[in-house]
Parts: sequence; structure tokens; C-alpha cells
Amino acid sequence: MSRRRQIYEGKAKILYEGPEPGTLIQYFKDDATAFNAQKKGTINGKGVINNRISEYIFTRLAHIGIPTHFIRRLNMREQLVRQVEIIPLEVVVRNVAAGSIAKRLGIEEGEMLPHTLIEYYLKDDALGDPLVSEEHIAAFNWAGHEEMQDIAAMAIRINDFLSGMFAAVDIRLVDFKLEFGRIYDGDFSRVILADEFSPDNCRLWDFNTGEKMDKDRFRRDLGGEEEAYQEVARRLGVLSGEDNGPGEVLDMDAHRSRLRTPAPKATGPKPKK
Amino acid sequence: MSRRRQIYEGKAKILYEGPEPGTLIQYFKDDATAFNAQKKGTINGKGVINNRISEYIFTRLAHIGIPTHFIRRLNMREQLVRQVEIIPLEVVVRNVAAGSIAKRLGIEEGEMLPHTLIEYYLKDDALGDPLVSEEHIAAFNWAGHEEMQDIAAMAIRINDFLSGMFAAVDIRLVDFKLEFGRIYDGDFSRVILADEFSPDNCRLWDFNTGEKMDKDRFRRDLGGEEEAYQEVARRLGVLSGEDNGPGEVLDMDAHRSRLRTPAPKATGPKPKK
Repeated sequence: MSRRRQIYEGKAKILYEGPEPGTLIQYFKDDATAFNAQKKGTINGKGVINNRISEYIFTRLAHIGIPTHFIRRLNMREQLVRQVEIIPLEVVVRNVAAGSIAKRLGIEEGEMLPHTLIEYYLKDDALGDPLVSEEHIAAFNWAGHEEMQDIAAMAIRINDFLSGMFAAVDIRLVDFKLEFGRIYDGDFSRVILADEFSPDNCRLWDFNTGEKMDKDRFRRDLGGEEEAYQEVARRLGVLSGEDNGPGEVLDMDAHRSRLRTPAPKATGPKPKK
Repeated sequence: MSRRRQIYEGKAKILYEGPEPGTLIQYFKDDATAFNAQKKGTINGKGVINNRISEYIFTRLAHIGIPTHFIRRLNMREQLVRQVEIIPLEVVVRNVAAGSIAKRLGIEEGEMLPHTLIEYYLKDDALGDPLVSEEHIAAFNWAGHEEMQDIAAMAIRINDFLSGMFAAVDIRLVDFKLEFGRIYDGDFSRVILADEFSPDNCRLWDFNTGEKMDKDRFRRDLGGEEEAYQEVARRLGVLSGEDNGPGEVLDMDAHRSRLRTPAPKATGPKPKK
């Protein structure tokens, strides 16, 4: 096999040309950076775990009707995704004050926000990913009005769903970052969830002890980042031995049949369609 | 202690006058009914389990900003709740076709609905809780326009949160029924979630086997209803040995401090405020 063409290398992932037009391969590295790459390091095995956690979460988001770029996991560090035109915004959803908002607005870290906040940051490393308002987004046309409505609605649904998912395993979803992209169908375009969801880009606190289970362990030199990422995966059941095959967004028929009380197994050859 | 005054007896619960004005005690029975009480029976220990599951869910819904009538669990079968003026609607949220909708619209049970549906049924046993539309609700003024907007918005958020919560423990939330009530503050009123959330009034299917883990086991004479209810509680961690004290909606300060990394424990007397 000839060497694949690299499309883009980010801080924690590499994108390669995919096997078919309109697809990409998303490779998860162990590299960790913080403070806009001023701090650099490695979290051993992070790429493998983030690949699995992100697969788990994107698959379940698809089940509740959130369109995503995820197609299927290929191997330990790679997943096949749809190629999108990335919208140059980091969409941050916050339930509890932590990190930059606590500093910027003088709120004590750990304080519940009056209500869930959505913030937008311009994806621009050279500028340090500055905070922008919807006014800026409209003025510079980084995303259209309807696109922004879709993004906000999806962000809130994702927050509710994932807050429930993490609450069930005694983890508080404090905040997280999403990225969205456009896919085109002739003259029409649609916004879908892209990038990844992992402890690299969210804050997860143990509900009972308050312990941090995310990249803040690296950012703040708390240590134990490998164990924290593994513990998140373990609680979600992602690292259970029985499910080591590559995951895939279930096609609807397969999905439905999974949901029914299983019928007696048919024997003999499958009918041809 | 003198005998408490009974306010209302339903099919699965009894409401007693509470210790303070504006409160009630909600008692969970083991009685099970189906098909508008044409079928009657008992599920041994159901009241104890439903009391715990409902506490677990209402507490977590309060954390994401859904106002509820739940104050705290008092003992094995009772919880203290706020007295509300009940809105005479059963609010049903459906992700997958099952039960009455499958029959009514000729959809195969287990089929994913095109999108999540909210249905309203008039709470009236004598009429068999008939399906009503928003037109009927407006015409007969069972709830106001703004109240209906609040109810629909809360129902959708609850669905996303609980879909995530159950997905994390490999359970598919197929559908569920909610009830809402009004509380008054002077001339103003506000709609809050009332009643309960338990396998009595939702459909829960094991994600992998499709097995039913809810009252359909009783309705359809499938057997194993006690074990199914216990299994739901077990997966949610509700029956873990360590948490046997009565639960309570955390006050915000307590909640916040739970979320922070614990500070060194202060010794000596508590400062007076």
C-alpha cells in the first residue's frame, strides 16, 4: 500500500485522505498540549482511549438524531469520518465555571452557572482562539444565521444527553468543546458534528470526590492523567474485554432489530433481496 | 402520632398530607394495574424500588435545571414532595414505537420513530385517558399556551438527559409518561415536574438483548417483573449498599462544594453566620 496523503496535522490528531472521496481517516496521537501549545507533552495511550471514547459518544449521539462525521472505527488509533468543511468556531458549553471563564469573569471555579452557557471562540491558533460573539460571527460570515441556530440547538441537546450519560457513571460534565462542519448536497449544505469528544476537550469531575478526570490533570501538573483517562473509559464500559471489534454507526434496520425482543433465530441461507 | 390524612389514592401511590403546608407525602405501593385497571396485581417490592429510582432521577433532573416537586426521600416507601395543582395531562414522550401508538397507527413495535414524539392524554380514568391534541388543551383550558411551551421544552430536555443516563447503563429509553403541576407564588404560577419516574411509567429495553425491563412484563404476562425492576435499579447504582440514607435535592452551596476538589477539612467549631 502506498503512503497515505496527510491532509492536516493538529495538536492531538492527524487527518489522512480516506479510502473514498468525501472521507478522511482521523488518527489519534498521544501528544498533549495546553495553553495554545505553549506546554507540550505526551499522555501514554491517550490516542487509543480517546479514539474509543469518541467512538462511543458519537455513536450514541447519532442514535438520538445528532448528525456526526463519524462513520466507523478502523483500528486502535484511527477512525473513518466524513470530510467536512470545518466551521472555524470552537463551540464551548459550560455548566459549571472552570478554566478560562472563571479567570475571565472572576467566578470561583466550581460555581454552578446561573444557566448553561454556550460560548464561541474563533479557531485561530495565531490569535490564541479569541472569544467572539454572535455579532462577530454574523459580521465576518464564519457561519450563517440558520447554521448558528442548528449549532446552538445541537449543543444544548448534546449537553443534556451527555450530562445524563456521565451522571449515570458518577461523573459531572462541567464543560466541553465541540466543532462542527458543513457537508454539501448539491446547492444545499448541512451542519454536522465533527472533530472528537474526549477528556482532551471537556472537563469531567468525579461526582463524589470532585477529582478531575480530564486534561486539566496535564494542564495543571496534577499527575495521574493516564489513569484518569482510563477511568473515564472504564466507567463508560468502553474498555470492557468483550467489545473489541471496530464500532460502527448502526444502520437503521440492524439497530431496530437490536431493540426488539429477539425472534427465534432463522436457520438456513439468508433470503436474497 | 395521630393518623395522617390521606389526600388521594391512585393505582400505584397514595398521597398523604405533609408535615408542613404546601407539602405532601408520596407513598409507593406494590400494586400494579394495567389497561386502565382492568388488570390488577402486585409486584413484590416495587414500591421500594420505584421510590429509589424516582428519587435518583428527580434529583439528577433538578441538577440540570428541571424544577420538580421532589424534596427528599423519607424512608423505604415514602418521599416528601411539594403540593402542586396537577395539570390533567399525561405527557408521553416516545423515541421508538411501542404499546398504544404501535397499535393505533399500525407501526411495528420496535420501529424508530422519524423523530421523538410528544403526545398528550387527558388524565381521566372514566374516559380511559383519551389522546388529546394541543387544540383540545387550548379549547378546554387544561393548560395555558405558555405552560404548554414549558412542558414541551422540559419533556424534550428530560428525554435527552434520561436517554443518555440509561444509554450509559445499556438501556434504551423507548418511551415514558410525565405529569406536571402548578405551584403558585402570589399571582404567578410555575409549572414543575410532579408524580414519579419509574419502570411503571416508561419502557426500558436492554440495549443488547432487547429484553423488556419495565411494566410491560406485567401487562403482557412475561414474568420476571420483580427481577427486571431490580435490574434497572442495580444498573443505575441505586441499590448499592453504601447509599442507604434518605436522599435530598442538594442545596446549591452543598452541591457546589461537592463539585470542587475537596479542601483540607477544617477542625474546630463552625463559624457562626
